[in-house]
Amino acid sequence: MRNWLLPEYIEDVLPIEASQIEIFRRSLLDLLDVNGYQLVMPPMLEYLESLITGVGHDLDLATFKVVDQLTGRLMGVRADITPQAARIDAHMLNNQGVTRLCYAGSVLRTNPSGLAQTRQPMQLGAELFGHAGIEADIEIQRLMVKTLQAANVNALQIDFSHVGIFDSLMINTHANDLLKQSIYEALQSKDKTELRFLTKDFDADIREALCRLTELNGDVSVLDNALRDLPKSPKIKQALNDLQQVANALADLGVGISFDLAELRGYHYHSGMVFAAYAQGYAGPLAFGGRYDEVGQAFGRARPATGFSLDLRGLVKSLPTHTSTKAILAPYGYDPELLNKIEALRTSGERVIQALPGHDAHEKELGCDRRLIHQAGQWQVVAA
Amino acid sequence: MRNWLLPEYIEDVLPIEASQIEIFRRSLLDLLDVNGYQLVMPPMLEYLESLITGVGHDLDLATFKVVDQLTGRLMGVRADITPQAARIDAHMLNNQGVTRLCYAGSVLRTNPSGLAQTRQPMQLGAELFGHAGIEADIEIQRLMVKTLQAANVNALQIDFSHVGIFDSLMINTHANDLLKQSIYEALQSKDKTELRFLTKDFDADIREALCRLTELNGDVSVLDNALRDLPKSPKIKQALNDLQQVANALADLGVGISFDLAELRGYHYHSGMVFAAYAQGYAGPLAFGGRYDEVGQAFGRARPATGFSLDLRGLVKSLPTHTSTKAILAPYGYDPELLNKIEALRTSGERVIQALPGHDAHEKELGCDRRLIHQAGQWQVVAA
Repeated sequence: MRNWLLPEYIEDVLPIEASQIEIFRRSLLDLLDVNGYQLVMPPMLEYLESLITGVGHDLDLATFKVVDQLTGRLMGVRADITPQAARIDAHMLNNQGVTRLCYAGSVLRTNPSGLAQTRQPMQLGAELFGHAGIEADIEIQRLMVKTLQAANVNALQIDFSHVGIFDSLMINTHANDLLKQSIYEALQSKDKTELRFLTKDFDADIREALCRLTELNGDVSVLDNALRDLPKSPKIKQALNDLQQVANALADLGVGISFDLAELRGYHYHSGMVFAAYAQGYAGPLAFGGRYDEVGQAFGRARPATGFSLDLRGLVKSLPTHTSTKAILAPYGYDPELLNKIEALRTSGERVIQALPGHDAHEKELGCDRRLIHQAGQWQVVAA
Repeated sequence: MRNWLLPEYIEDVLPIEASQIEIFRRSLLDLLDVNGYQLVMPPMLEYLESLITGVGHDLDLATFKVVDQLTGRLMGVRADITPQAARIDAHMLNNQGVTRLCYAGSVLRTNPSGLAQTRQPMQLGAELFGHAGIEADIEIQRLMVKTLQAANVNALQIDFSHVGIFDSLMINTHANDLLKQSIYEALQSKDKTELRFLTKDFDADIREALCRLTELNGDVSVLDNALRDLPKSPKIKQALNDLQQVANALADLGVGISFDLAELRGYHYHSGMVFAAYAQGYAGPLAFGGRYDEVGQAFGRARPATGFSLDLRGLVKSLPTHTSTKAILAPYGYDPELLNKIEALRTSGERVIQALPGHDAHEKELGCDRRLIHQAGQWQVVAA
C-alpha cells in the first residue's frame, strides 16, 4: 500500500542536492567543451548486442533487459555510456582523425555499484578516439585531473595499471575465457592462494609472474621492480615504459601517483593503460578510465580509444553542500506595473515567487529573504 | 551482425543537436528557477505501483517493465515525470503551503509518441502543488507560454478544455470504467457515430450533451454556446467560467486562445482544466498540461496540483540549427608557457584543441577557425 516507497538503492534527488548536481554538471561539461570535447547524448535503450561489448559478464549482469514491442528483440537499458560513445565514433561521425566526445547522463544497474552505492549513477565522461599513442592517454588523464579539481576535489591520488602486462603473461597459456576470468578476479582481490591453484598447469615463470603482480603496488619504484622480476617481453617492457612516461607527464598537476599492476579495472573492455582517481574522504575511486582499443571492433570499425568517466551524483554527495535559497516574495496580482517589475528582477537573475491567494499562513515555507512591496508610489524590494 | 543499428524510434543525439539541446535545457531551467520552481531529479526506475497512477491504461502500456533482482518485484522505467513530482511533493517535501517543482530528464515509452515520434522524449516541466484556485492554473499557463517563448517559439496558440465538464455529464450515467474509457476515446477523435452507439442507454439530454461536445471548439464564443446548450449544472457553469477567466488572464501575452471541449488530453490523471500549446510549423502540441488533483491520493496525501511539460528534444528538433564550432588549434606539447596560454584561453571561454602527434593530415576534421602559433617570441592566436 505504500506506493511512495522507492526500490532499494534508488533515490530521489531533492532540490538542494539537485541544484548542486546541476551546477557541477554545467561547469564540468563547460570544461570538457573548452577542451574540444563535443557533447553527445546516446539513448537510454539499445539492442542488447550493441550494449554488451568485450569479454566478461559484468556488464551483461548489470544491464536491465526489456523486450522491444516493435520487433520482439531484446533491448537493454544502458549500464555504461563508454561503449555507446565508441559506437557513435565508429558509425555516426566517421572521422578519420581524432574524435573527442563527452557526455553526461543516467545509467541504470541491476545492482548497486560505485562511489554512491546506487543503481542509478549519473555518468559524466570524456572519450578520445582515433589515436593509439601515449599522448592521447596523457591528454585524457590530465583532463580527468582537471575535471576533478574543477569539482573541488583536492589531494588527488592517481593509481595506474596496464592490462597489457596481464595479457602478455596469459598469451601462451591457452587458458579459456572462464579460467582467464577467474584469474582476473583472483588478481583483482590479490588472492595469491586462489591464483596458485588456478595457474597450477601454467609454466613456472608465468605462474610466478602472475603471483608477483599482486605484490607490485606502490610508488614509482614498482616499475623498476617489475622490469627486474617479470619475464623479459617487449610488450611488458613497453607497458612499463608507458607507465613511467605518464607519471612524468602528470608531475606538474600536483597529484599523487601510484601503481598497482594487479588492478585490472572496469568491464573488461580495457586493453591498455588503466587508471583511477582517489581522494581522502571518499570510499572508492572518484573517476576511472583507460584504453579500450578493441571496443570499436564490435561495431565493425576498430579505432584506438581512451577515456575516463565519473559518477557525478556520487561526487556531489560527498561534497559540502552550499544552500543558498535567496528569493523575493511578490504579492499576487496581474497589475502591469507589478508584472514589469517582477519580469525585470527575474531577467536580472533574481528568483521571484509570486504569492497565491489564501496561502499567507505558509509563506515561510517558501524561504524568501526579501519581499516586493508597493511603497512611496513604486515597487521596491525590502528585507523580509 | 550490424551491432551499431539502433532500435526504431530510438536515436543518438549528435554534437550539433546535443549542444543546442543543452543550451535550451539550461536557459529553460534557469527561467523556471527565477520563477521559484525548485529542481528535482526523480529516478528513472520505480516500483510499478508508484509510476502507474490514475485511471486508464495508456501509461501502463507505455511503461517498460523490469524485475527488481533484489526483491523480485516489478519495476517500471518512467514514461512520465509528473506523477513522480506529485510523489515527491506528497512525501518527500511535505510542505503545507504551495510547492513549486521543475525537472528535466529522459523518459522511455514502449511506443513512439509526441512531437518527435520518439520512444525517448526529454521531458522538461514545472508543477505547482497545494493550491486549488484558478490563480495556480493561470500561473502555470503563463509560465508555459514564457517557457516556449524563451525557446524561440512564436505565434503560439493555446487550446483549452476542462475535464470537469465530461465528469459532470458522466456522473449519473453509472457507466463502468471500460465504457467511460471508450466514450473518452470517441470524444478525443470526435467520432459522433461511435459516441451515439456507446451512449444509447443514457438519458437523452446527457447523450445529446456528449455529442454536442464534439462541436464545441473554436474561439471564445464556444463558451457562450456551451453555457446555452449544455445541461444547467453548477459544476459545468463553474468550469466554463474558469475557462473564461484564464482566457482573460493570458490576453497580455500575445498568444492565440482557443477551446475544444471534447479534448481530454493526457494520461487520464487530469481532473480539471487542461491545455496544450500549438504553433505553426509543428505537427503536434509543443507542450501541454493541466490540473490533476487526484494523483496525490495514490501516495496517500491528496494535494491540489497543476503543471505543464514539454519534450525538449522534439522542440529543439524543429528549431533552426545554429552551428558555431569556433575553436583554436594548438600544437602538441607540454611546454609550461604553451600550457599557460592554452589554460588562459580556455578560462576565457575559448575552445582550444591540442593537436596530437601524427594526425596533421586530419586536422581539418576538427573544424578549427584559428590556430595558436609561436611568433615573435610569444604564443599568439591567428586565423587558421
